[in-house]
Amino acid sequence: MWGGRFADGPSAIMREINASIPFDKALWRQDIAASRAHVAMLAACDIVTDDDAETIIDGLEKIAAEYEADGVPENWDLEDIHMTTEARLAELIGPVAGRLHTARSRNDQVATDFRLWTRDTIDQTLAGLQALQCALVSRADEHSGSIMPGFTHLQTAQPVTLGHHLMAYYEMVSRDVARFTEARARLNQSPLGSAALAGTGFPIDREMTAQALGFDAPTANSLDAVSDRDFALDFLAAASQCALHLSRLAEEFVIWASQPFGFVRMPDALSTGSSIMPQKKNPDAAELVRGHAGRIVGCHTALMVTMKGLPLAYSKDMQDDKPPVFEAAGLLQLCIAAMTGMVDGADFRTERMRQAAELGYATATDLADWLVREADIPFREAHHITGAAVKLAESKGAALDELSLTELQDIDARIDDRVYSALSVEASVAARASYGGTAPDQVRKQVAKARQKLGMDT
Amino acid sequence: MWGGRFADGPSAIMREINASIPFDKALWRQDIAASRAHVAMLAACDIVTDDDAETIIDGLEKIAAEYEADGVPENWDLEDIHMTTEARLAELIGPVAGRLHTARSRNDQVATDFRLWTRDTIDQTLAGLQALQCALVSRADEHSGSIMPGFTHLQTAQPVTLGHHLMAYYEMVSRDVARFTEARARLNQSPLGSAALAGTGFPIDREMTAQALGFDAPTANSLDAVSDRDFALDFLAAASQCALHLSRLAEEFVIWASQPFGFVRMPDALSTGSSIMPQKKNPDAAELVRGHAGRIVGCHTALMVTMKGLPLAYSKDMQDDKPPVFEAAGLLQLCIAAMTGMVDGADFRTERMRQAAELGYATATDLADWLVREADIPFREAHHITGAAVKLAESKGAALDELSLTELQDIDARIDDRVYSALSVEASVAARASYGGTAPDQVRKQVAKARQKLGMDT
Amino acid sequence: MWGGRFADGPSAIMREINASIPFDKALWRQDIAASRAHVAMLAACDIVTDDDAETIIDGLEKIAAEYEADGVPENWDLEDIHMTTEARLAELIGPVAGRLHTARSRNDQVATDFRLWTRDTIDQTLAGLQALQCALVSRADEHSGSIMPGFTHLQTAQPVTLGHHLMAYYEMVSRDVARFTEARARLNQSPLGSAALAGTGFPIDREMTAQALGFDAPTANSLDAVSDRDFALDFLAAASQCALHLSRLAEEFVIWASQPFGFVRMPDALSTGSSIMPQKKNPDAAELVRGHAGRIVGCHTALMVTMKGLPLAYSKDMQDDKPPVFEAAGLLQLCIAAMTGMVDGADFRTERMRQAAELGYATATDLADWLVREADIPFREAHHITGAAVKLAESKGAALDELSLTELQDIDARIDDRVYSALSVEASVAARASYGGTAPDQVRKQVAKARQKLGMDT
Amino acid sequence: MWGGRFADGPSAIMREINASIPFDKALWRQDIAASRAHVAMLAACDIVTDDDAETIIDGLEKIAAEYEADGVPENWDLEDIHMTTEARLAELIGPVAGRLHTARSRNDQVATDFRLWTRDTIDQTLAGLQALQCALVSRADEHSGSIMPGFTHLQTAQPVTLGHHLMAYYEMVSRDVARFTEARARLNQSPLGSAALAGTGFPIDREMTAQALGFDAPTANSLDAVSDRDFALDFLAAASQCALHLSRLAEEFVIWASQPFGFVRMPDALSTGSSIMPQKKNPDAAELVRGHAGRIVGCHTALMVTMKGLPLAYSKDMQDDKPPVFEAAGLLQLCIAAMTGMVDGADFRTERMRQAAELGYATATDLADWLVREADIPFREAHHITGAAVKLAESKGAALDELSLTELQDIDARIDDRVYSALSVEASVAARASYGGTAPDQVRKQVAKARQKLGMDT
Repeated sequence: MWGGRFADGPSAIMREINASIPFDKALWRQDIAASRAHVAMLAACDIVTDDDAETIIDGLEKIAAEYEADGVPENWDLEDIHMTTEARLAELIGPVAGRLHTARSRNDQVATDFRLWTRDTIDQTLAGLQALQCALVSRADEHSGSIMPGFTHLQTAQPVTLGHHLMAYYEMVSRDVARFTEARARLNQSPLGSAALAGTGFPIDREMTAQALGFDAPTANSLDAVSDRDFALDFLAAASQCALHLSRLAEEFVIWASQPFGFVRMPDALSTGSSIMPQKKNPDAAELVRGHAGRIVGCHTALMVTMKGLPLAYSKDMQDDKPPVFEAAGLLQLCIAAMTGMVDGADFRTERMRQAAELGYATATDLADWLVREADIPFREAHHITGAAVKLAESKGAALDELSLTELQDIDARIDDRVYSALSVEASVAARASYGGTAPDQVRKQVAKARQKLGMDT
Repeated sequence: MWGGRFADGPSAIMREINASIPFDKALWRQDIAASRAHVAMLAACDIVTDDDAETIIDGLEKIAAEYEADGVPENWDLEDIHMTTEARLAELIGPVAGRLHTARSRNDQVATDFRLWTRDTIDQTLAGLQALQCALVSRADEHSGSIMPGFTHLQTAQPVTLGHHLMAYYEMVSRDVARFTEARARLNQSPLGSAALAGTGFPIDREMTAQALGFDAPTANSLDAVSDRDFALDFLAAASQCALHLSRLAEEFVIWASQPFGFVRMPDALSTGSSIMPQKKNPDAAELVRGHAGRIVGCHTALMVTMKGLPLAYSKDMQDDKPPVFEAAGLLQLCIAAMTGMVDGADFRTERMRQAAELGYATATDLADWLVREADIPFREAHHITGAAVKLAESKGAALDELSLTELQDIDARIDDRVYSALSVEASVAARASYGGTAPDQVRKQVAKARQKLGMDT
Repeated sequence: MWGGRFADGPSAIMREINASIPFDKALWRQDIAASRAHVAMLAACDIVTDDDAETIIDGLEKIAAEYEADGVPENWDLEDIHMTTEARLAELIGPVAGRLHTARSRNDQVATDFRLWTRDTIDQTLAGLQALQCALVSRADEHSGSIMPGFTHLQTAQPVTLGHHLMAYYEMVSRDVARFTEARARLNQSPLGSAALAGTGFPIDREMTAQALGFDAPTANSLDAVSDRDFALDFLAAASQCALHLSRLAEEFVIWASQPFGFVRMPDALSTGSSIMPQKKNPDAAELVRGHAGRIVGCHTALMVTMKGLPLAYSKDMQDDKPPVFEAAGLLQLCIAAMTGMVDGADFRTERMRQAAELGYATATDLADWLVREADIPFREAHHITGAAVKLAESKGAALDELSLTELQDIDARIDDRVYSALSVEASVAARASYGGTAPDQVRKQVAKARQKLGMDT
Repeated sequence: MWGGRFADGPSAIMREINASIPFDKALWRQDIAASRAHVAMLAACDIVTDDDAETIIDGLEKIAAEYEADGVPENWDLEDIHMTTEARLAELIGPVAGRLHTARSRNDQVATDFRLWTRDTIDQTLAGLQALQCALVSRADEHSGSIMPGFTHLQTAQPVTLGHHLMAYYEMVSRDVARFTEARARLNQSPLGSAALAGTGFPIDREMTAQALGFDAPTANSLDAVSDRDFALDFLAAASQCALHLSRLAEEFVIWASQPFGFVRMPDALSTGSSIMPQKKNPDAAELVRGHAGRIVGCHTALMVTMKGLPLAYSKDMQDDKPPVFEAAGLLQLCIAAMTGMVDGADFRTERMRQAAELGYATATDLADWLVREADIPFREAHHITGAAVKLAESKGAALDELSLTELQDIDARIDDRVYSALSVEASVAARASYGGTAPDQVRKQVAKARQKLGMDT
């Protein structure tokens, strides 16, 4: 009836669909830390005796050592990490183990564990992002004056500096850092002591467990505390946005590494070959960063769909919160590390970049701007004059600054020979010295600010 | 620089981000089957000698036996299942192993393996769905005359039969079956022989490998064949829609099992207790089916995002196709089995259902219809008259058929005492005998059709 | 070739796919404000004369008055709100209009306008959320002592107070407020002056326009400034999470309003009737809030997919940023207002709630806790004893406190008659006085804090 | 309390959140067609008189003429298109209008209308896809022998023909056609007569209305018929997958149109210029196709989230089905038309393509294959020999066929001078003549098949 996989009927199905131990064993450190904090508080509040508390804590320490050495056993009948640990505790210390679950429930226990785990993950993610920022800033520093074509619509638009381009990603990552930092602050409240849903009648001290676990405060409403997965969604939203940023840089590396662009040689260590084409060197790491972005967004969608329309308080649907968070966290950390390696090890082919910047009439805007500035022509009119110059140059297969002065003056008599100094790519980037602009001086200022913020000069 | 996890720098990161063997080892059966078909064809086409082919096939059989016995070894340096198997083959049979990769590439190889895997999964899913349909039809048969309140907006609307309600899910699952069947037919073309992207110069016979692997035909365009993941998206789209159907039935079980409804007792084997509240019996399996729907939709989203905007032909991003499909496939099969168990084992409390159907003025429409039919009043007017009757009954705390004839005639003189026969819930359901309606006779007809279609009576 | 709709070929298609004026006209106020700030700065920096600036500002004011009175004209040939306004300006004031576009591009212009619009929308959303919080707190205050069944898995778990339940939503909304507030702070930087992508050669003062438009600072990198849509994604992430919260409350209202629950009568003004069933009163507004959550999540997904893998700088794909944000913003504000109306106007049927709380052995945990507290039994053992008591009571069809002392003592001799005082629903909720618990006193404390925070007592 | 927008309180909010007329007026043609079919059937079944039916049909025709001429009035108090039309009917023909709603409900009415609308949209989409296929096939025909670099990982892999590349998209679109065709077949059942949820007591003939409206049959279960939105999800799934295909081609056009590639000049009519950079010609239409893919996927997600966990039968959440379908349908048709225009009008720069194909050692695989074929070396060994040759050529800055025979024989003595004939790009593509391969002959065969299937030669 159930198909061969479930020959034993409903109980076999239930064991498999219900057991979270295959994935929630990842919470074991947090689970033991929270149990220790809980029982220490129970003793301090005279809800269990000091002796019992000590026995329990000793038992928990033994279990931690076992898990560290041999991993967490996966017995589906024990359902989850909480029951697995409690059952082992009872084996080790007998019935006194049963006092640990006083004034708590798995509902507040898992909410606490999962918050602690997510907090640790955010901390690791923040460390990774800082390394990525340092890599971006270092390479930007090195290339504050390297000229490349700036693109809009992937069409050559205006010359920019490679340093400026890399610093754009520094800005994106800075916003990611802010987002994870805010998510961390918001999650940092302790659900422990909310019990099943209503709080508890035991005279517990939730402030004490909150402090012991590094939380800023206990949560203010027990029903909310066991029903809330905002902290997981906050993490996934921040992870999605971060992954999207990384996917943009990855896309650029893939395009830049193509033969027609040839702007970059990716580090060997982050590329692979082909099983059939001996000449290939593929930017696999960049592609995988881009691909992983899809999966991280999928994880985010998954939890949003799961939480939609769930009544209070805890529902078992919420057990489906962990796999997407665990998956997204692992993928994101890998993406950040891979991208750091790529930024750090990319061999930027600045000569090819510079050559490309000189094609495509990238300094046409400079001509228009020159007309506004020097000939006091309204910008719209200057834009039209420049359009005519570009058209002429295109028809001759020439660059803008290869047009003769006569040719230019035939288009508009107000042009004089000072214009040529505005039409080189160097002049173009140097000119864009407005705040946040691409001029090497501007880039170096932003780099300096970033180095200081990141503590790179100490 | 990369954080502690990647102390060895880029190569350690690359090993981890690049290796697909942790998940694509699931394809080993398909990979070996495809290799066997390929080398047999190479021999038939005189591209390798019969002796070499035999040696290779013997080697592949040995490897299959090893994998079956000990699992697939996970050596990240060998990247994927294809390299893992080929490396082992070289160990077993020496350089002749190198002839296996003639006229193929990993690009067409993985496309072939993954199609075969997805086809097998669809077949298993279809078997599961048929079991679910049988369970639904059996319970519908049993309850073709059991009366319950039909809801719209979760408000009591009109009496319906439980059999009718269950058969609505039979219809949904029938559409799921159609969708998976179509997805199977569309995927059933062989990419093998498309090589890296352009086809091959060796005089291969793609028809022969296609047949050997049970495909209907070889794919018609090699660039498409290695770039296409429609078959995976088709599977995920069908899985998402199926999961949404199951989530609806799961939602109903959760609501029906609540104390205020009390329409159903869920099978013990698919429920759990509480670690803190001794009286609890929770419909965990139903909640997990609902929760898993979120994750399956997330898997679908993941692959859509990954495929968006990828240029031809194969890109490494496409390695991120397998985890979402594997995850969704596993979750869906579990959901189908769990739901089959629930339908099969649910203890429907038909007395409470019937009582509930008698509350809430569920037969008000029958009064309106009677007025149209017997007194030739336009429906809109009949609707207003009935509204007045409901209002009066509500104010008296009475059921509609507890109003006296005088009271009814005060509202509209055209009402006579034949009306009472229309106002019982039995009369109401029996009356709705239009095709597809809730009348027990209608339900039994649909059940009979379904039983025949499913081969339940043979 | 293009189908009838596009009889005129590519140009007709292009006009339709390219024109954003049908939706970006919503930005007209922001566009004019940004143009005014820009030209005032150009004059202050001597890039245009004061006279020209004045002429332009007069023209912009005239246009604003026209738009206010007659709406924004939709001429697809003018593509967008920026060109529409500039074209009208040229009609009104002649070629001097062409000076307005000096030192800016549509790329920084639209980034500025859209940030301003999103900032306004966040402010309106925050006002709506505050109204909703006030409604929740007021009703929680009123019902701090009203007893209802608390559910987990939608099974009766423990008695809670309705005030406590409503305050759980106050907590959720508080997190929404924090999220929107953070999104606002992060977006509040001015892209204006970033020009097309590289900054500008004109000696502009970006600080000045930033201040004039209420931004905290100019953005630090021009490439990022025109490529970044984080502010839109931040808004959509916050909106999605808020919508999910509202969907949960909506789900509860729908379930509570069903006949078997009967916990609430929804306000007439937020319900509808049926075209066919005269007795129906449907909780449409709650259902639409739930449905809208789906669409808001869809808007969020849309922009994530669109931004994935886009190289720098501006790409036209980013024109698809506005429809999802506009749609989500409108839906969310409607949801918040509707939910405020529902909370405010809901007729809570507290007697039915209380009756339901007394069923389902909701105080079983209190018996277990009593055994721990008074008889010093480890919780796990107490849990088992209580399970036996519940089983006995169930078999007799009695409530827990209807078991005789003898019966209880037969189960465990350590029980004495003080136990009965623990088994009423009033005793149960009063006991749960841990911080954040459901005890009326605790609820009142949280209500008082919230009232103060919201300024409700002034 | 509700914010300024809703000064009138709940009723104003309800009017706005509840009214679907702003969007469902798009269904007016279908609504009137279904009403005509319904009343004709009521008359044929003697449920209304022939006179009444005629009066009603006359009224409906008048209303259709009014809508055609002046549009559908948007009176929010009438909620939706059904009430709007019925109210107008009552104005025109008096109380007999009230007979139209006999034996139906808005629940089956809207399900019928929306299916009819989706069916029409699928038919238009299929027509658009056929035009796109014709454009692809025509250009492929023209370019069956034009050589370009085939890419994997966006790295030059092997030479392919442009015709082959375009035919890959023909294959994708063929699958889209199949998907929409299957969706159409599955939706083509008539819900009309399912009434509110339970069917009706009137002796209606559902077969008759089904036939009149072009449906294949009536739906088999009334509860399912009013609760089912699979047809909308099927459409959205097919639309998403189609949009993803188009996004891939759009991505290629954007990359190909970049200066470093220079493979294509996009049609002027589907490009735009820049407000600031006079030289720009941006591939806007391609970018918008890519961007719209995000929104279409978002629409799909929206409806999946909305339908998740909805109990039977109709819930008002399902009113949120139409906006995503309407939006996705409009965007997709525009994308198909724009892409058809691009394919049709693209100026492929085949010389630049050919030059690029000669760089990047694209024929290295041909050398390896030659070694296997002519020197009987196992492929793996041949792959290594070729790798050495590529390395040598790279170090000399030469193409593979610019290495001297001595140089090649130093690498492997088995190489002789016949090898040179294998190393040209022409030889490479001509060699790949396996079924579905890139050889011009193969491409022409597939083109011929496609032309026949599309009826292009008649």
